[in-house]
Amino acid sequence: MNIDELAFDRNGLIPAIVQDERTGEVLMLAYMNRESIRKTIETKETWFYSRSRKELWNKGATSGNRQIVKRLSVDCDQDSLLLQVEPAGPACHTGETTCFHTNGFEERKSVRGVVHEVVDEIKDRRAN
Amino acid sequence: MNIDELAFDRNGLIPAIVQDERTGEVLMLAYMNRESIRKTIETKETWFYSRSRKELWNKGATSGNRQIVKRLSVDCDQDSLLLQVEPAGPACHTGETTCFHTNGFEERKSVRGVVHEVVDEIKDRRAN
Repeated sequence: MNIDELAFDRNGLIPAIVQDERTGEVLMLAYMNRESIRKTIETKETWFYSRSRKELWNKGATSGNRQIVKRLSVDCDQDSLLLQVEPAGPACHTGETTCFHTNGFEERKSVRGVVHEVVDEIKDRRAN
Repeated sequence: MNIDELAFDRNGLIPAIVQDERTGEVLMLAYMNRESIRKTIETKETWFYSRSRKELWNKGATSGNRQIVKRLSVDCDQDSLLLQVEPAGPACHTGETTCFHTNGFEERKSVRGVVHEVVDEIKDRRAN
C-alpha cells in the first residue's frame, strides 16, 4: 500500500473501520489522515484524526483502551481502510465493547451476538 | 433508530459498513442517504448512494450478488452504520469476497484468514 495513492477526501481524510481481530466484531469507524496512517503503521497502535477537535488522537492514550493493530487493509477503490486489532478494552466511550450498540432493526438475533451474550452471562455468574 | 436523528454529512450521506453476518468478514464500505436507508429497511436488501453516478443503487441488481440485511446498527455518534448481511455472492466487482483484499501491512496472518484459505483449498481439491 502506497499512502500517496489512497483516495483521501477533500479534507485529506479517509474512513477507517476498526474490527476486533479475534471475535470479528466491528468496533468503530473513525477517520485517518496521512500522518495518522504513518503513526499507526509505525507504532502498531491506532491513531485517528478528530474532525471536531482538529487534531490527531491515539486511541486509548487516556483511557488505556489501546488497540494493537495486527493488520491494515485497503479496499478496491482505495478510499477506505480496515484495521484488524487486538483491543485492550471497550472501543466505545460509553463502556460498550463496540460503538455500534444501537439497533436500527434486526431480523433475528445473530449467532455471533448470542455467543457473546452467553459468554457475558457465564462471566457474570462466576463473578457474582 | 430515527433516520432524522442520524448525523448525515454536508452531502446528506452517512458511511455504511457491510459485514457478512455469518463469517464476520467486513465486505465493503459504501454511502447511504435518507432514501437508501428507507429502501434498505423496506426491502431488506442493501441500497446505497453512488457518489460518482449520483444515484441510488441496489447492490446486486445487475450482478445478482445481493445482500440480504439481517441487522442494521448505528454507532454512538449516529454518524455511521453497520449492516450485517447474508451475501448471495462476492461483494467486490473484482470477484473477491471482500473489497478489502489488499494488505497495507500484516503482523501475522489472522486465524480467520487461514480458516478461509483452508476452506478454499478443500473446495478447490474437491472440484479439481
